[in-house]
Amino acid sequence: MIDTYRGRTVLITGGLGFIGSNLAIELASLGAKVTIVDAQLGDNLEKQSNVDSIPDCVSIKIADVRDESQLEELIKGQDFIFNLAAQVSHVESMRRPLVDLDINCRSLVAILECCRRVNSSVRLVLAGTRQIYGKPQFLPVTESHPINPIDVNGINKWAAERYATLYSNVYGMSTICLRLTNTYGPRMDISDGTKGFVGVFIGQVIQGKPLKIFGDGEQRRDFNFVSDVVHAFMIAGSRRDISGRSFNLGHMEHYSLNEFVNILSECIPLESERIPFPPHRQVIDIGDCYSDFSDFHHLTGWSPKIGLREGLQRTIAYFLHTHGSLRC
Amino acid sequence: MIDTYRGRTVLITGGLGFIGSNLAIELASLGAKVTIVDAQLGDNLEKQSNVDSIPDCVSIKIADVRDESQLEELIKGQDFIFNLAAQVSHVESMRRPLVDLDINCRSLVAILECCRRVNSSVRLVLAGTRQIYGKPQFLPVTESHPINPIDVNGINKWAAERYATLYSNVYGMSTICLRLTNTYGPRMDISDGTKGFVGVFIGQVIQGKPLKIFGDGEQRRDFNFVSDVVHAFMIAGSRRDISGRSFNLGHMEHYSLNEFVNILSECIPLESERIPFPPHRQVIDIGDCYSDFSDFHHLTGWSPKIGLREGLQRTIAYFLHTHGSLRC
Repeated sequence: MIDTYRGRTVLITGGLGFIGSNLAIELASLGAKVTIVDAQLGDNLEKQSNVDSIPDCVSIKIADVRDESQLEELIKGQDFIFNLAAQVSHVESMRRPLVDLDINCRSLVAILECCRRVNSSVRLVLAGTRQIYGKPQFLPVTESHPINPIDVNGINKWAAERYATLYSNVYGMSTICLRLTNTYGPRMDISDGTKGFVGVFIGQVIQGKPLKIFGDGEQRRDFNFVSDVVHAFMIAGSRRDISGRSFNLGHMEHYSLNEFVNILSECIPLESERIPFPPHRQVIDIGDCYSDFSDFHHLTGWSPKIGLREGLQRTIAYFLHTHGSLRC
Repeated sequence: MIDTYRGRTVLITGGLGFIGSNLAIELASLGAKVTIVDAQLGDNLEKQSNVDSIPDCVSIKIADVRDESQLEELIKGQDFIFNLAAQVSHVESMRRPLVDLDINCRSLVAILECCRRVNSSVRLVLAGTRQIYGKPQFLPVTESHPINPIDVNGINKWAAERYATLYSNVYGMSTICLRLTNTYGPRMDISDGTKGFVGVFIGQVIQGKPLKIFGDGEQRRDFNFVSDVVHAFMIAGSRRDISGRSFNLGHMEHYSLNEFVNILSECIPLESERIPFPPHRQVIDIGDCYSDFSDFHHLTGWSPKIGLREGLQRTIAYFLHTHGSLRC
């Protein structure tokens, strides 16, 4: 992994965000020349604190990937692009579908077109989502599960994947997509109530507020600690022999929301209450969902190393103590 | 059908184009109050001649569906919207993917959002495409065939369908999509070499030029005459009990390109030659493809009435003699 990235140029879109900033730190520590591009959308404290402490060895450019005029300068000369700029809230995608389309889909088409013109040998790694499967027809969901997104975000993320596959097939470009499940850990956004429930729950317990569990809490999910996801991205970037394909990440452990809350309560005191599912969330909720990651495992050897208990302990410790520092 | 449309308000986007203008004529003849909106993209003679002779009973607004500011005025008060504004060239979608995205996908999201705000009871009928299936894994392709688009157009058209289904499922809006196969007939675009081969071939024979057949000419396809497609759209608009779904059109007759050319040669003298498949077309060619339309048939009774021989005779007669007149 060191040989793959040492001295190489890497662009991380959305690199001030949760996964992007963790990836930037790891790649910089391996000796990569990391450029972060981030639009600094939203104004949560975590993102701001990431900016404050970003190390000198990482170059930061504040720009919006929706602005096509800036892409060529950003993309030229890069050995790797990790495309982590995203609108990730399913609820928000329903409120502002055109914003979700522009960030998650249109900007990727512009990036692919720009790569094709000025840097067609770049390795492009995309963050996808298991949301594209919709309500699972079988569990765990494999990559051959029917594609049936039930929210705007799922449609746009699927289209984005397909563009990458198309540019690999037609133009021989080197792309790969990882379909993420619930990802959590240091630097996650815990202030935005519209994103995944893990960040919402951790934000609530850090503030000493009771957790609000929608429905009966029996929905089963899997969870990846961010260091495992960062490792998967770095492997994906390194495997140019695999192109145009999409792979699930996931975890062999699955927990109901109630079990999740019990484990969280072992890390930090908390109160919880059940409330009815808000209708606008119920309609886009996918119920039980966890992923089969055996394709990616068999091809690359990747599997998650961190279980939920350890991951939550580390996450809570981060937010209680180290809150937002970036090391390099 | 008369009861469904007489005195009702109908918006046809792309209504100066091939299928849109034929649909406008039929709906106007049934007594509908038809508004056409068209951006008059391109400048081919057929489209211009449709404009010249458009009857008084049809209102024409020159506007681009990509311009969100114009949508509310167009959509308010409509009983039906037929969304036929489209970029339909697969080759062109590869050349200018962002234009294809904006016309085929982004503008539909804006239309759906506008309908949700100001006219959520409208019946919205979409023109889809069997291109979303990619290279068929089995024939004829059914609606449950895997979705595997191999060009930009196919990705965007699939995303557009899914948005419509989503707005039906989540907001209770009334949508339906017809996945078209090769459609041909009067008012088709025969001047644009980047669209389907049927228009290209007819344009070549009308001009007395030899037909250029890519490859061995053994690719098998099905063909719908435009009056059958117009009829299918009118049925689809009338069936509010069917919402959020997508249906194949198609034909029980399938022909190889060589057979197609033989039948065409019975309508008008022609010469043909075989040339190697141009690489940029080969890579997005789907090979043999014809559709199973039994779902739509069983639900609505629709089936195509016009066979290829009669359809080609009528089409050639139109282009030789009546060239571009619109009746009302």
